[in-house]
Amino acid sequence: MNKKIIINNIGKIILVEVLLMLIPLGISLGYGEYQDAFAFLCAIIPVGIVSLICIRVKEPNMTLSSRDGYIIVAASWIIISLVGAIPMYITGAFSSYISAFFEIVSGFTTTGASVMEEPGVLGHGPQFFRCFSHWIGGMGVLVFVLMIIPMENDSSMHLVRAEVPGPTAGKLVPRMKTTSRILYGIYTALTLLLFLLLKICGMPVFDAFCYSFGAAGTGGFGITSAGISAYNSYTIEMIVAVFMLLFGVNFNLYYLILIGKIKEALNTEELKVYLSIVIFSVVAIFANLYPLYRNFAEVFRVSFFQVATIITTTGFATADFATWPMFSQHILVLLMIIGACAGSTAGGMKVSRIIILWKSMIAEIRGIINPKQVISVRMNGQPVDKKTLDSTRIYVAAYCILVGLSVLILSVNELDFTTNVTAVFACFNNIGPGLSLVGPTANYSCYSDWAKLILAFLMLTGRLEIFPLFMLFARSAHDQRRPLKLHKRL
Amino acid sequence: MNKKIIINNIGKIILVEVLLMLIPLGISLGYGEYQDAFAFLCAIIPVGIVSLICIRVKEPNMTLSSRDGYIIVAASWIIISLVGAIPMYITGAFSSYISAFFEIVSGFTTTGASVMEEPGVLGHGPQFFRCFSHWIGGMGVLVFVLMIIPMENDSSMHLVRAEVPGPTAGKLVPRMKTTSRILYGIYTALTLLLFLLLKICGMPVFDAFCYSFGAAGTGGFGITSAGISAYNSYTIEMIVAVFMLLFGVNFNLYYLILIGKIKEALNTEELKVYLSIVIFSVVAIFANLYPLYRNFAEVFRVSFFQVATIITTTGFATADFATWPMFSQHILVLLMIIGACAGSTAGGMKVSRIIILWKSMIAEIRGIINPKQVISVRMNGQPVDKKTLDSTRIYVAAYCILVGLSVLILSVNELDFTTNVTAVFACFNNIGPGLSLVGPTANYSCYSDWAKLILAFLMLTGRLEIFPLFMLFARSAHDQRRPLKLHKRL
Repeated sequence: MNKKIIINNIGKIILVEVLLMLIPLGISLGYGEYQDAFAFLCAIIPVGIVSLICIRVKEPNMTLSSRDGYIIVAASWIIISLVGAIPMYITGAFSSYISAFFEIVSGFTTTGASVMEEPGVLGHGPQFFRCFSHWIGGMGVLVFVLMIIPMENDSSMHLVRAEVPGPTAGKLVPRMKTTSRILYGIYTALTLLLFLLLKICGMPVFDAFCYSFGAAGTGGFGITSAGISAYNSYTIEMIVAVFMLLFGVNFNLYYLILIGKIKEALNTEELKVYLSIVIFSVVAIFANLYPLYRNFAEVFRVSFFQVATIITTTGFATADFATWPMFSQHILVLLMIIGACAGSTAGGMKVSRIIILWKSMIAEIRGIINPKQVISVRMNGQPVDKKTLDSTRIYVAAYCILVGLSVLILSVNELDFTTNVTAVFACFNNIGPGLSLVGPTANYSCYSDWAKLILAFLMLTGRLEIFPLFMLFARSAHDQRRPLKLHKRL
Repeated sequence: MNKKIIINNIGKIILVEVLLMLIPLGISLGYGEYQDAFAFLCAIIPVGIVSLICIRVKEPNMTLSSRDGYIIVAASWIIISLVGAIPMYITGAFSSYISAFFEIVSGFTTTGASVMEEPGVLGHGPQFFRCFSHWIGGMGVLVFVLMIIPMENDSSMHLVRAEVPGPTAGKLVPRMKTTSRILYGIYTALTLLLFLLLKICGMPVFDAFCYSFGAAGTGGFGITSAGISAYNSYTIEMIVAVFMLLFGVNFNLYYLILIGKIKEALNTEELKVYLSIVIFSVVAIFANLYPLYRNFAEVFRVSFFQVATIITTTGFATADFATWPMFSQHILVLLMIIGACAGSTAGGMKVSRIIILWKSMIAEIRGIINPKQVISVRMNGQPVDKKTLDSTRIYVAAYCILVGLSVLILSVNELDFTTNVTAVFACFNNIGPGLSLVGPTANYSCYSDWAKLILAFLMLTGRLEIFPLFMLFARSAHDQRRPLKLHKRL
């Protein structure tokens, strides 16, 4: 491990965050909310100085190893959250620094779980920052930084591999910097399109920005407790639902479409399975709800919107699905776990992982039938390489172990089983609302501060897909020369 | 697939079941309960004739292939349950044939989930048969049959591999027949010892037999709704708890102890982890309950007994743990999933699988740290072979997919989330009681008949560890010459 390189890179990342905070500072000043502006300055000035000091730490050879990449990604996600919580806490809207930390981790990880009874009490600056964190966290803080800061190609690849969701991470073009720019270009274009459409439908400019950020990052913060349903507009909800689904698609496909490979893009297995799950779920929930409400348009509205918001792990609440029939609720819980496509801004297990697991299971059964035949798992016609297969399976195992342990730890809070299980799923998969006490009309203020810390850790673990955060705690990662302590436990 | 061999073998298995039914028939006659005796005769005579016809189907070459083995095991578990349900239904104690089928599947799979409000209404014969099914199902119906019926060594190995729980199945001695005899010898000796101890503590002979069968098979049927707590004896509960834990240990270890390799037996990793989990859980639940009840002996009694009954997936209820603090309840739910050791009579995921998964996860993290190093997963000092690793990971994936789908299907019954989730876990892991509507003081009569069929299927899938049952539905398993239909889906 090369401490100097790590400090230098984390310094750059925090500097970018500090620069981004200038936008909400400007907004606070523009609206004349000087107390909020002061809160941002309290973070910007000292943290800015520290980051400049960090950047001065240099080494002649600035090449990153794979393990350095993982450590930088994990550490900087924690640090930007710690920094981001400072202005939020100083505004006075949160009961404790930990609550503010929970809120901003929920923002960056695009979870959208809130501890606020009424988010409307926030000033324009902090509100913008809160929603903007969804947008930055959605595509990736590091991917954003790589777009701006010069870095060796190999080094940046290590960072992206640790941050981009899904079983594999690839480059669109040979240079990682160009790849970041293409990804953020598509992302910005889609976000602006959504913003314009929302504006046309009559949403105020500020609100349209906030909800565009939330939908693009598949975050889910509402700027009031009523959320999107406050506008009471069928068109707005349909537009947001369609865009959430679009942001749940692997961004590589948009690149393929841009360079004219439309057929190739539409023909990928993950996209087909993703759309099939969406259609199946909408139809099933519609069929389950229709006999109760008997209003075609209204039932379609809530079933389509809720499926879109849950499978993409956004978590905008327009309906209290906790009052729906059990069958519909159970479908939503399954969608929470599945999540959308790899390489999108969504959380969850990812459709491609589910496909790989399903095919591995079929291959195992076929292996029993024909022990002599070699059966490979294929995806889009190509055999999936052994490394991806292994890590996908281990990911599921780690996922199960973590979920089990977290539910156990949270149970000390003496809340009910449904609350704990769905809170863990909702945080780990970066969704937001769960069921029971953390249902769509409730919030996470029922948990104590230490439980909020655990849930915040779960959001980070889920966003970075488990392994990077654990690298921070694996002792051998910190020193190459020290004997590998983990070895003995194997 | 060789249909003749399969029919021949299934015929033998059913004949053994019919012969075993002579015992409860004798008991019914002995107690003068002629209506129950008639119920057994209604099954024994026609099924006996059919089985004799099946046995007459022969082929010159009677060697079994691996796939034939899986099909025989899966089919015969379903058929012996269908047959076993006949006398139970005719006794008139069940509302439908499906309820009786659920009850006897629950018996053979050692689940112990009951649909009876008051099991005490059953006559002595059916009651004995119900508890005896735990004993037979615990060690394995096929393992029992192999002890009696001559079969080629290779063929019998295929059967045992499909039936014995755990990631790997081995022979103790070169001949499978001898292995079966050793296993059933140890099993019988331990059961008799438990019976004697219960008898000495004042339990009536009939009851002592029933509860010994239930504890040995880690089943969990009570012969009255009060179960073991009906005897109101501290000693009885302690003895049963200790024996449940003993039956949750891999039987290979008892064989090692018998042949003098005591150190080797006590030094296996799975045993150590198993005991550690037991001790940790007892201490944690004790600490959680003590402030509420403030009675050392009483709190120890319920915490020790419940941990033993849940981790071994027995499911004897002596305390309504649904009223315990959430932390204790959550520990029990985790224990339900973990289960006891491989190669024991217990259900669940098995401790050895958890160890393999945990080590795989650590190995994955170390692989990220040192990409060039080859990291192997080791167990008891030996590297775990690739096939076992792969199938363990796929087992977990299949487990998760099945649990998800089953919970979704059951949700149509409109029972609550906790009931559905814990019912699926309790049936799939062959435990018995869950939480909420299927809690320790309740039963499964809240589910409709089709839901009972799904749960019965889950019990069988859990007992046979997923793959054998799916072989029955994989079309390619039925005909070697037909093109593999599953291929296209990969």
